[in-house]
Amino acid sequence: MRSKIAQKKEATVVEKVVSLAKRRGFVFQSSEIYGGLNGCWDYGPLGVELLRNIKEEWWKFMTFREDIEGLDASILMHPRVWQASGHVDNFSDPMIDCKQCKSRYRLDTLSDLVNQKRKKKTINALKEALGDGNEGVEKINSFFVNSDAEGEAKLDDVFEHILEDEVLSRLMLKHLNCPNCGNAESFTEPRSFNLMFKTFVGPVESTENTVFLRPETAQGIFVNFLNVQGASRQKLPFGIAQIGKAFRNEINTKNFLFRTREFEQMEMQYFVKPEDDKKHYDTWKEARIQWFKDLGMTAEKLRFHDHPADKLAHYAKEATDIEYQFPFGWGEIEGIHNRTNFDLSKHQEFSGKSQQYYDDETKEKFVPFIIETSAGASRSFMAFLVDAYSEEEVKGETRVVLRFHPKLAPIKVAILPLVNKDGMPEIARKIEADLRPHMKVFYDDKGAVGRRYRRQDEAGTPFCLTVDTQTLEDNTVTVRERDSMEQERIAIDDLLVHLIRKMK
Amino acid sequence: MRSKIAQKKEATVVEKVVSLAKRRGFVFQSSEIYGGLNGCWDYGPLGVELLRNIKEEWWKFMTFREDIEGLDASILMHPRVWQASGHVDNFSDPMIDCKQCKSRYRLDTLSDLVNQKRKKKTINALKEALGDGNEGVEKINSFFVNSDAEGEAKLDDVFEHILEDEVLSRLMLKHLNCPNCGNAESFTEPRSFNLMFKTFVGPVESTENTVFLRPETAQGIFVNFLNVQGASRQKLPFGIAQIGKAFRNEINTKNFLFRTREFEQMEMQYFVKPEDDKKHYDTWKEARIQWFKDLGMTAEKLRFHDHPADKLAHYAKEATDIEYQFPFGWGEIEGIHNRTNFDLSKHQEFSGKSQQYYDDETKEKFVPFIIETSAGASRSFMAFLVDAYSEEEVKGETRVVLRFHPKLAPIKVAILPLVNKDGMPEIARKIEADLRPHMKVFYDDKGAVGRRYRRQDEAGTPFCLTVDTQTLEDNTVTVRERDSMEQERIAIDDLLVHLIRKMK
Repeated sequence: MRSKIAQKKEATVVEKVVSLAKRRGFVFQSSEIYGGLNGCWDYGPLGVELLRNIKEEWWKFMTFREDIEGLDASILMHPRVWQASGHVDNFSDPMIDCKQCKSRYRLDTLSDLVNQKRKKKTINALKEALGDGNEGVEKINSFFVNSDAEGEAKLDDVFEHILEDEVLSRLMLKHLNCPNCGNAESFTEPRSFNLMFKTFVGPVESTENTVFLRPETAQGIFVNFLNVQGASRQKLPFGIAQIGKAFRNEINTKNFLFRTREFEQMEMQYFVKPEDDKKHYDTWKEARIQWFKDLGMTAEKLRFHDHPADKLAHYAKEATDIEYQFPFGWGEIEGIHNRTNFDLSKHQEFSGKSQQYYDDETKEKFVPFIIETSAGASRSFMAFLVDAYSEEEVKGETRVVLRFHPKLAPIKVAILPLVNKDGMPEIARKIEADLRPHMKVFYDDKGAVGRRYRRQDEAGTPFCLTVDTQTLEDNTVTVRERDSMEQERIAIDDLLVHLIRKMK
Repeated sequence: MRSKIAQKKEATVVEKVVSLAKRRGFVFQSSEIYGGLNGCWDYGPLGVELLRNIKEEWWKFMTFREDIEGLDASILMHPRVWQASGHVDNFSDPMIDCKQCKSRYRLDTLSDLVNQKRKKKTINALKEALGDGNEGVEKINSFFVNSDAEGEAKLDDVFEHILEDEVLSRLMLKHLNCPNCGNAESFTEPRSFNLMFKTFVGPVESTENTVFLRPETAQGIFVNFLNVQGASRQKLPFGIAQIGKAFRNEINTKNFLFRTREFEQMEMQYFVKPEDDKKHYDTWKEARIQWFKDLGMTAEKLRFHDHPADKLAHYAKEATDIEYQFPFGWGEIEGIHNRTNFDLSKHQEFSGKSQQYYDDETKEKFVPFIIETSAGASRSFMAFLVDAYSEEEVKGETRVVLRFHPKLAPIKVAILPLVNKDGMPEIARKIEADLRPHMKVFYDDKGAVGRRYRRQDEAGTPFCLTVDTQTLEDNTVTVRERDSMEQERIAIDDLLVHLIRKMK
């Protein structure tokens, strides 16, 4: 457990990033002038470039391989897709409301909102109400005995186990006060709430015309498996990669871009022979965490969270999350799953269309296994942004720097002519025109150069060029590197090659 | 008017393109294994690259300019946005149903489905029912007199005018048989149907929780005007560019990607001083049609359709469509509009937040005018695809070629080793590895080279390299150009530079 003070300090980092994101045009609240729309965000001028760069790096990483094909499927899909996938029946959260203050909670996240003292009191009240020797009490006691957690974490663990138990959770809620208004016995019965947004195709709002906004991009890949395989003539193993929006009607949105209602995914589904599943799962697991590291994300803040066998999703044989250590705790930014032949078998069953692959070497037909790599583009954006954020003291002032990898930085080079005379603006504009076809360039000739540097540090621009009086003498410019703030003089003729080399 | 035979021939071209698009992996029907979802399409491996290239060229064209900023706003927005924009009240089509066969028609497109003979008969029946001297009959006669159209087109024109008249259209529908089942007097009364898809945020499906899937990306730009301007410190004139999905619950989808329910837009809104509106409108009009031409679209198949003053949308002072001559007729692929200060004024009124711009030179405050350039990414995709399609006789066989501009072609170079011996595959693989970081490469060593060429012609690949026995002798390869089918030998060392130059 983190201390209250540590939590407060960490929260401040997120607040600072959110504030910087708005001020500098990375992220705005959606429909802000109307008070915003909860769980939706807009990417501003710098944000859209960062997001595009992340998606572009992912797309190149995937589709530049000979064995991976791209796809861009529609957001609206046939409703049977979501019956086959299990989303209509299973994609729901248990939810409770406070009858007094109308606060709404997801049952499985309630533990985060209740402190230790209250948890202890509530569990004791529940045990007392049930009475000695009761089956439920014995179950609760067994939760304590079987928990691997130590100290205070044990209590959290037991509290969460009770919430997961359908009978015990209902009973415990009677003894738990609302975390918001503090009222006792004010919770509704838990009920299940499907997280898919629904809408109606055509003018009649009937069940038969109901379609859903896709809650994940994966199904668009699965239902196109044979279309893509036929058109591309790929043989197993091969993958299909897709970037696109998905929507979930989350009960509680939180943590900036981490849990939102509209978000973007980058998914690659790799179709393999069933007997090769483990090999490909392990390979992709390593390849994907390495991708984040290669783009500069702090290695120590990345880890795998392997799902224990008893907590696997219904479609998965093996699963892991790549987690990033956000200021608010570890959070998933990508999932890697061995989905077996679950998805294609279900679509075969529900569509009545064979989803078998014909192996022309062994002359066998079978439904392939799928190894899924499912990254959040929006979550990756947030992780890269938070990871890049740093503050340091420079000459008694705080310098805020976004230390993006040059490949991800929204602006690659800022051109800052020092004084507006002697043909300097002309030289600076000439340099700008020469660099612009090759990279995102920003030109700024307003104000003191120190302040212009600071603005570029905040934007994460890796290089600043200054054109000064020496430029007129020897045709060189100063190149300042963002992180070290070191400067070197480079001949204008060598500039492009120098910058491109530095950016790799 | 085109003849029936010409129409049939033209329809065949679309059918051929749709068939090629599916077979080669440009476009699949959404959820095809479930029978498809009307008005939704998926972009396959070649299609997603073509679409990405179109969007990338547009994005560079726009945001590489110093005076244009990027944005990526959410699809779900605050519902007040659509009240301010007028979409809640006005974004609807009049719709009728046939009570017999349940066919549904948009009133304003009914004319396309009724032949000349039937039109004449229906109008005569209407006139007869109204009786001589009736006000309605005089109105109909005036439609004939005032129509500029000649011959058969005059009848179409009058028929459409009657449909636009609220009273006359209701009366005429009583005399018109259903174009599908032929039944008489079987139409429902026309009613207005809002084209926005709606959904509910949170678990309660109430009016207050209703939000809409954006029917256009433009409003996401308008509501962020001051956010973007503040963060980027741009001064007028400047633009905001955005690419993204939009959704319209169309009554009749048709013509492949032309009228769909889910589609993608590329919009740039240019904020200007009111007195400069005409200048910027004219500049953007020319710049935008030139963009399509520069990317290889046949100039003779592009035209402007200027909106006459009496048919302008409620927000527009001046408007034009860039139309492409599809096989089914001229169709809009981009609109350029002088939207005046309508949008920002409405958002100012509905949000209560000032949307004024402060001009620090003149010290004046005012609401800027907006010149809109609104291109359909999906429609541009279809236009580029149809325009590229060609068939020609080569040695007694039909060669199908997609003559894409190299910048748009999904695959830039195919590498085709002629025989699998003497180290040729190694050389071919080495060339592939050297080119791959710079462009999309495809490697194919299966089957006769003639067939491999044909497959690349169908994919629109501008260059094919063959590695042959001469390669072993002099380190050259054959480069075959798609359109001319001419071949030249190029030294492997010069290959990259040669190809990059050719692609410009």
